[in-house]
Amino acid sequence: MRALVTGASGFLGSHLVSALCQNGWDVTAVLRAGSPRNERVHPAAQRALLAEGYENLTAIVQAARPAIVFHTAAQSQGQYGPADAQALLSSNVTFPTLLLAHLSEVGCNAFVNVGSSWQNAQGAEYSPFNLYAATKQAFEDVLVAYANCGLRATTIRLFDTYGPDDARAKIVDLIIHATLSGQALDMSPGQQILVLSHVSDVVRALLHAAQLTLQRAPSALVYSMPGESIVLRELAQRIGRICDRAPPIRWGARPYRTGEIMNPFVGTIPIPEFVCSTGLQEGLTAVIRRHLARRTSERP
Amino acid sequence: MRALVTGASGFLGSHLVSALCQNGWDVTAVLRAGSPRNERVHPAAQRALLAEGYENLTAIVQAARPAIVFHTAAQSQGQYGPADAQALLSSNVTFPTLLLAHLSEVGCNAFVNVGSSWQNAQGAEYSPFNLYAATKQAFEDVLVAYANCGLRATTIRLFDTYGPDDARAKIVDLIIHATLSGQALDMSPGQQILVLSHVSDVVRALLHAAQLTLQRAPSALVYSMPGESIVLRELAQRIGRICDRAPPIRWGARPYRTGEIMNPFVGTIPIPEFVCSTGLQEGLTAVIRRHLARRTSERP
Repeated sequence: MRALVTGASGFLGSHLVSALCQNGWDVTAVLRAGSPRNERVHPAAQRALLAEGYENLTAIVQAARPAIVFHTAAQSQGQYGPADAQALLSSNVTFPTLLLAHLSEVGCNAFVNVGSSWQNAQGAEYSPFNLYAATKQAFEDVLVAYANCGLRATTIRLFDTYGPDDARAKIVDLIIHATLSGQALDMSPGQQILVLSHVSDVVRALLHAAQLTLQRAPSALVYSMPGESIVLRELAQRIGRICDRAPPIRWGARPYRTGEIMNPFVGTIPIPEFVCSTGLQEGLTAVIRRHLARRTSERP
Repeated sequence: MRALVTGASGFLGSHLVSALCQNGWDVTAVLRAGSPRNERVHPAAQRALLAEGYENLTAIVQAARPAIVFHTAAQSQGQYGPADAQALLSSNVTFPTLLLAHLSEVGCNAFVNVGSSWQNAQGAEYSPFNLYAATKQAFEDVLVAYANCGLRATTIRLFDTYGPDDARAKIVDLIIHATLSGQALDMSPGQQILVLSHVSDVVRALLHAAQLTLQRAPSALVYSMPGESIVLRELAQRIGRICDRAPPIRWGARPYRTGEIMNPFVGTIPIPEFVCSTGLQEGLTAVIRRHLARRTSERP
């Protein structure tokens, strides 16, 4: 099986590429030139460096000849100003749409897309947390149009993901780092609920979605990634118990973000016939062990 | 009142600019360099030529300092291939999003957008007739995100529009031209229902939407343009009666388009407190008179 993976040097993308390579897939890893994590991509994958204006996308798709595309690339930072808007649209709408437009040239009609629970900030109806979430929704709209001409697309909307080797400075790693280092961490009051999925389960979900997608008639379907719900303060306590020390968090030192999602909408249909295999306790323990090992090895 | 109008040389845009100028608005007409209809823009409007890559959008917005934007520009041609996809996204998503991103710099938070009934090809749920419709939907998603930070936006989804000086070669003008010239016209079986709105009513609807938008709290609302429903074959008969000769149409000489909308979805909420003032009989008669006058003046 031949796959093309976008965002291949990212947290999710690099884990996915490794899993695909280990399962014997022929993988083309699409990378941005100069991305600091490009060396993390599994050595068995073909690397394809994407030009700034996507001019070489034709050549990349022609060389990859994928049976399916996994689109994990995303620009997730940015506000509403012109430069941010341009970057968000280019990465999250224009790039994957051009990719879709090229796929039919090589007879590929299967696409697994990564969406975000932030598209449903207020509940079942589309209600974007920010412009990033709007660009994710916009690309789902484009997928529906391509399903008119034969595309099979499955979007998995993610909540919070965590796991080993996460360079994104997300909440789980921030709390673990603070707890192990003793460095104080200013946070919001911490009453928001998170829905956490371990990256290995997300990878399994994407592979499962690929099988469903390849077997289906043309359509664009949307599922949510299952996960374990926990209040942020309880997550910190859980991490503290595993580390055997209290997290040095100053709760309430920062306000909630504008429009903070206190209670994520979990009503999107979860991906069918799929259950997570890594529980939160097990997953956190492994990540904490990895932090400890790194701290030990970095000690002079 | 200061307004910025995109697509100002288009069929709808040029009629809107004229109406705004006649009502005493201070209008900036955003135009593409080299567009063949740029000379049709009302002389009282300020003309702003948009650079290919939108680099001068900051300068245009700063000079225009609009209280409200009317976004009538649209790329409506194109299929699913890379070049078409790029053009559709650039004109229908990237350009208006960058415009939104610049508006807050001049304190403008009101936006009237033109959508398409093709976003609802199959009914109430989003179901795009083609990629053009998907880009229209995608931009509506972006409007919702900007409403998070203060934007008031109203989208009016149009069905079929017609009226004087329409260079788009749409169905009404095609049938009138065939009927008056006697040149045979190959068409589909013609059982599809059209919902026709006269451009003067669409202009009135956009002006009405502007008033609603300026008075409202931040939000992104969507309404449909009302119109008169008629089966295509009956429309041809109606035109034939006004012209007093039978339209030379070969019904069924062409197939219906893929996914042809036989029965447009009219369930989107119509724009509140608005009724059309130009009936189909009156509107068609005026357009036919205009055709006849042009044919007379063009005769050697």
